[in-house]
Amino acid sequence: MRYAFAKRVQHLQSSAVRDLLKITDKGDVISFAGGLPDDDLFPVEAVEKAFAKTFQSGGKAFQYGPTEGYIPLRQVIVDRMKQKGIPSRVDDVMLTTGSQQAIDLFARVMFNPGDIILTENPTYLAAVQVFKSYEVTIIPVESDEHGMVPDDLDYKMKKYMPKCVYVVPTFSNPAGKVWSLERRQHLLKSSRKKKVIIFEDDPYGDIKFNEEETYTPISALDNGDRVLYTSTFSKTVVPALRTGWIKGPHQIIRMMAQAKQAADLHSNSLSQHALYHLSCDFDLDGHIQKLRKAYYNRMKVMQRLLDEAQMPGLSYIEPKGGMFFWVSLPEEVNTAGLLTTAVNKGAAYVPGAPFYVSEPKHNTMRLNFTHSTEEKLEIGMKILMDVFKEAIEEEHQRV
Amino acid sequence: MRYAFAKRVQHLQSSAVRDLLKITDKGDVISFAGGLPDDDLFPVEAVEKAFAKTFQSGGKAFQYGPTEGYIPLRQVIVDRMKQKGIPSRVDDVMLTTGSQQAIDLFARVMFNPGDIILTENPTYLAAVQVFKSYEVTIIPVESDEHGMVPDDLDYKMKKYMPKCVYVVPTFSNPAGKVWSLERRQHLLKSSRKKKVIIFEDDPYGDIKFNEEETYTPISALDNGDRVLYTSTFSKTVVPALRTGWIKGPHQIIRMMAQAKQAADLHSNSLSQHALYHLSCDFDLDGHIQKLRKAYYNRMKVMQRLLDEAQMPGLSYIEPKGGMFFWVSLPEEVNTAGLLTTAVNKGAAYVPGAPFYVSEPKHNTMRLNFTHSTEEKLEIGMKILMDVFKEAIEEEHQRV
Repeated sequence: MRYAFAKRVQHLQSSAVRDLLKITDKGDVISFAGGLPDDDLFPVEAVEKAFAKTFQSGGKAFQYGPTEGYIPLRQVIVDRMKQKGIPSRVDDVMLTTGSQQAIDLFARVMFNPGDIILTENPTYLAAVQVFKSYEVTIIPVESDEHGMVPDDLDYKMKKYMPKCVYVVPTFSNPAGKVWSLERRQHLLKSSRKKKVIIFEDDPYGDIKFNEEETYTPISALDNGDRVLYTSTFSKTVVPALRTGWIKGPHQIIRMMAQAKQAADLHSNSLSQHALYHLSCDFDLDGHIQKLRKAYYNRMKVMQRLLDEAQMPGLSYIEPKGGMFFWVSLPEEVNTAGLLTTAVNKGAAYVPGAPFYVSEPKHNTMRLNFTHSTEEKLEIGMKILMDVFKEAIEEEHQRV
Repeated sequence: MRYAFAKRVQHLQSSAVRDLLKITDKGDVISFAGGLPDDDLFPVEAVEKAFAKTFQSGGKAFQYGPTEGYIPLRQVIVDRMKQKGIPSRVDDVMLTTGSQQAIDLFARVMFNPGDIILTENPTYLAAVQVFKSYEVTIIPVESDEHGMVPDDLDYKMKKYMPKCVYVVPTFSNPAGKVWSLERRQHLLKSSRKKKVIIFEDDPYGDIKFNEEETYTPISALDNGDRVLYTSTFSKTVVPALRTGWIKGPHQIIRMMAQAKQAADLHSNSLSQHALYHLSCDFDLDGHIQKLRKAYYNRMKVMQRLLDEAQMPGLSYIEPKGGMFFWVSLPEEVNTAGLLTTAVNKGAAYVPGAPFYVSEPKHNTMRLNFTHSTEEKLEIGMKILMDVFKEAIEEEHQRV
């Protein structure tokens, strides 16, 4: 039987990363593909204690809850954001099923087909996926290692009159870079002038490698009416609880709460109670420091392996935080084309092309360094580099 | 600052029930408003053990999982549906954040603005809320106590050429009734003829009061290509885990999985692992029998209180299962208008009007009997009946 789907499904693309995860999860493949934290670093004991406390607290935690989420956890988030310089009130914060849902609900209440969003290029794949599903037109802004290039941003603000700028300014996915303060300020200033909303996606902000450095969220520079800010416990506690949040102007949050009523009534609230207890009883900041050190060490291992490959034409920016290396390979390497070969030999990555809004560079890839032990990093990177070297040699022989 | 929202937010209505829950949750109001199970009957110990087992099983349960949900739990659901006569395969089942999300994702992939859905009238409020948010036109079909009236159904199938018929055939929300087998068969036959999809919403099917009776799901009569079937653990285990599922034709489920990737990547998977362990180690069917008995007793108490009020013009159908009485009051009672008075006096209900797709009857209300103890049922119902009697008297004096 053929089914008449909605027109919008034409714009629904399955995520290259998620599809890849299905393949690599099954076998013995060493995967640098997913944005997965390390299983071995999960604070299992703390989560277990937090749930135990939730169970002791009785039936209420098992009942239906408010759409916006469990108020005490929202208060914890308000307090934690305050430490980052982001002022907020409980009413301006809504809990979501991961920050992915925050992006989706935002798009749902804000965008008509044909509306325009500016993004970096490359940018977060699954955000593009959401925006496209609402038939939004995405215009890439030229970016360098410090963020969006002001001239191009201003030019495109003027030319396209976007409704929103979507950015991942701190340890961006996939490119792993950090915006400078000047670029953050410039984006905010331009957005004010043109009455544009900024959507700041910050899942990785806590995973920074230099304790001394401060990366001020754009939301902290705003007076509260222009920037939406989303983050998550997926990278700092565990992903399976699927608890993220969004902070923004009350009018928008309220509208998103109405959309969430329709979408799922509310997110898993037992986990919200548990995360509240966890944040009271567990040294989450201490745990985050532990993660930073462990992930920094792995990043350094992967960097050494990239360097040791001594591949002319290979380049990357050293990540200052987050979970990814964004690697440019020699021009003759097509990462999408070589993925099956790599997976068959036992290692996986995400080809860079799907992250581009336009003009994809086919010689790029994203490598996750947080999910693999040093040993696996060694083995997996050797496999990958051999695959690429072989491909380059073949290409040269052909010429 | 004024924000330019998407046009679709015009069709986003906040749910009368959810808004009411916010009010009644705060004070000492006895609420018959929400569709809440009884906190005291939650299998807290079994849930606790199931989580303990999940924690023992190690880090994998804490990691990102597949969008469609944890496979072993989907297998449990396949087995449980088989007992109801619904054939399915794991690939045709997707886990969702409550069955509410199943309705939303289905609407997201199926409907263009202006598409037509047939429903009963009254029908489930939050489904209407979802359909309207996708700018679907909802056409009510005349219904009696046995289900949709065949003549009107066939007439409207022909006249409106709907894409889908949405039904809650077993212990319907809000009307509490059960469709006869003949009406189920007729709906399926008509839908086949007109190539229409049926969406069968069955959150309450397990809460039946007569153990001997069998109510065959429409999905069990289908050959697998026409009916989508959704249900949930919210009423039989606990709501806070927000775990529902949908079963349907593989093409549609696959498309919904792509929509779910964009919507939230996946639902809380720690809870999915725990529900799997719970279904292995706990006598869920025994627990459901316990719920049936307890809720039957409460239903009978509320029925007695409705009868004892001896209010001429008051009528209801005795529910054969589920959680609600649907009550018609004398014509001169406007339930929406009297709600504030009732809440101020200490008891709440849901006015019937919002459940109607068209031609609302203002003298109707929905009463939940599962969330209140016998004592609270007595006190709350006395408050309500006094409020209505007083209103009737005032009305008579005015005339």
